[in-house]
Amino acid sequence: MNFTNIKFDANGLIPAIIQDVKSNTVLMLAYMNEQALHKTVETGLTWFYSRSRQALWHKGETSGNVQKVIDIYYDCDADSLLVKVEQTGAACHEGTFSCFSRKLGQTDSQGEKLFAPEEVYGQS
Amino acid sequence: MNFTNIKFDANGLIPAIIQDVKSNTVLMLAYMNEQALHKTVETGLTWFYSRSRQALWHKGETSGNVQKVIDIYYDCDADSLLVKVEQTGAACHEGTFSCFSRKLGQTDSQGEKLFAPEEVYGQS
Repeated sequence: MNFTNIKFDANGLIPAIIQDVKSNTVLMLAYMNEQALHKTVETGLTWFYSRSRQALWHKGETSGNVQKVIDIYYDCDADSLLVKVEQTGAACHEGTFSCFSRKLGQTDSQGEKLFAPEEVYGQS
Repeated sequence: MNFTNIKFDANGLIPAIIQDVKSNTVLMLAYMNEQALHKTVETGLTWFYSRSRQALWHKGETSGNVQKVIDIYYDCDADSLLVKVEQTGAACHEGTFSCFSRKLGQTDSQGEKLFAPEEVYGQS
C-alpha cells in the first residue's frame, strides 16, 4: 500500500489513536514508524514503535490481547492516524479495556479490570 | 486543578485526542502545553498549542466551532489525553465533522462538508 503522503515526525514517528470499532471506545494512543505501519497493514494486526525500548512491538504479543485492524484513517494534516480495531480482551497492560481510565486531577483508575496483569505479564 | 502527574514531552507538549461525547466520533488530535491545558480546564473550552505557529490557539476562535469540554482523561502512562467534548458545528477546517476523513492509501475525503471553509476562513 502506498502511504507516501503520510507525514512522520522528525523522529520518524506518527501518533496512532486506537479505537474499538464495536463500542467506539478510544483504547490507547501509541506511535508507529514506517515499518510498524507497513507491518500493521500487512498482518492486519497492530504493530507499534516503543520510544522507551526503541524497538517495534506487536500489541498482544505477550498478553494475547491483539487488535484486528478494520480501517485506518489519517487526518487533514496527514500527521496522525486513527486505527479502528476489534480488540481481543483488554487493551491496557493494567487489565482495563481502555488505557484512558483516569480522569484529570484524580489518580484512581475507573476502569474494570478484565484480567489480572500479574498473571499475564508475571511479577516484576 | 492539580495535574502535576501529567507528563509533557521534551518540547513541553502532550497529544490530546478529541472525541465527540454524543456520537463517540474521534474528531481530531492536537497538542497542548501546560498553559493550554490550564486554559482548557479554566474556560471549559479547548485550547491547544500550534507547533507550526508556536502559539496557543483557541479551537473555534475564527470559525465559531468551539468544543465544550465534558471530561478529560489521561492514559496509563500519563503521556496522552482524551478530551470528551460537545462539538459545535464541525471540528475540521475542511468543513467535515472529523479531521479523520481519509482512509490510508486514498486521498479523497469521505466526510460530508458541514460548512464551506472559504466562507468561514476567507480565501487564501
